[in-house]
Amino acid sequence: MKIIELGATVTASNDADAQALREQLKAQGVLLVNVMSAAGSGKTTLLSRIIRDIAPLKVGVLEADLASSVDAERIAALGAKAIQVHTDGMCHMDAGMTAAAVNELGAGDCDLLFLENVGNLICPAEYDTGAGKNIMLLSVPEGDDKPLKYPLMFQKSDAVVITKTDALGYFPFDMERCIERIRRLNPEAKIFPVSAKTGDNMETLENWLHEALDEWRKQA
Amino acid sequence: MKIIELGATVTASNDADAQALREQLKAQGVLLVNVMSAAGSGKTTLLSRIIRDIAPLKVGVLEADLASSVDAERIAALGAKAIQVHTDGMCHMDAGMTAAAVNELGAGDCDLLFLENVGNLICPAEYDTGAGKNIMLLSVPEGDDKPLKYPLMFQKSDAVVITKTDALGYFPFDMERCIERIRRLNPEAKIFPVSAKTGDNMETLENWLHEALDEWRKQA
Repeated sequence: MKIIELGATVTASNDADAQALREQLKAQGVLLVNVMSAAGSGKTTLLSRIIRDIAPLKVGVLEADLASSVDAERIAALGAKAIQVHTDGMCHMDAGMTAAAVNELGAGDCDLLFLENVGNLICPAEYDTGAGKNIMLLSVPEGDDKPLKYPLMFQKSDAVVITKTDALGYFPFDMERCIERIRRLNPEAKIFPVSAKTGDNMETLENWLHEALDEWRKQA
Repeated sequence: MKIIELGATVTASNDADAQALREQLKAQGVLLVNVMSAAGSGKTTLLSRIIRDIAPLKVGVLEADLASSVDAERIAALGAKAIQVHTDGMCHMDAGMTAAAVNELGAGDCDLLFLENVGNLICPAEYDTGAGKNIMLLSVPEGDDKPLKYPLMFQKSDAVVITKTDALGYFPFDMERCIERIRRLNPEAKIFPVSAKTGDNMETLENWLHEALDEWRKQA
């Protein structure tokens, strides 16, 4: 498993770096999806399910963490292209770090490329990574009040995936109230309640990814 | 519910500010406990249970969030002293922000004072808040791999509280493996697997808080 160590790049140029990465990936026909959430919301489990379901589309994954390579190992075991990025203590990925990881992985032969951002509901929302789509996960055990407490990430996301819905009977999570809170912050966001464990509603999310890829390639 | 808006204070003096706050609170016989975790690990639920169980000790709570006052309202409804701090987008509390919140609350008549830090497994570990004890929560649904991915917070904590143990049958969480991973990072840390929902093992944690308070007051 390849591991690269990356520190912060110059923030002043982040927006320009992000735009340059988007153009590069658009020319290659690769859709980069930035996946954000708190620690433990099930990002790697969700991506593992998508990789299996969405074949023959070719998927690559950039795994960003402070330490370890457990996530990248899980992804690579499924036959996807994966690279582990260590962020030198940084709580988010910026565009320069993402571009370095994309080029290190060699993403040109992928259809979909996922950036599994550092687990954290705050800082990753503040930095454009160069992704074509931004999605976030909120897991049922975290609670339906999270849109109230971390509004920026909900506002910046094209899609909100509510994960671990198989645990809905077990935790006091009011789905209607949660969706209403998300809608108030971001009326345009797609909302997908799913269970990567049982597969429930995964197809709807995967169809959205297919459509996003088609649309992305039309823009090229 | 009182809400105060606080931005970052000067970081260069953070360690000195933290030490000054510790001395002030020691002179007042108040033990400040900094409570850290990812979003949705159950900090407010745990504190609610402790407030009920630990009476007649008088408890105050500083609730730090980016937005909303839902947590401080939950705490105040239990009859504890509570104040909501908004961090102006900041992903952690520093010592100057904590001191301002302590003084705004008027903590001198409390025995135990809890700082419910911003929900985030990364940034709060990097700033001394002036607390006498640092504790962190890891909830069972987040998974037993978190010590591998967020080592600093496990290293900085005097106690690790493993929450939502009532959900152990539901999620693939290996308690022994998790404890071993924590021990490798921090052999001195106390580890308390608890359920605030069922009350399981809460007494052990609460006894530790009683002992920590006694010890704190002896040092004064």
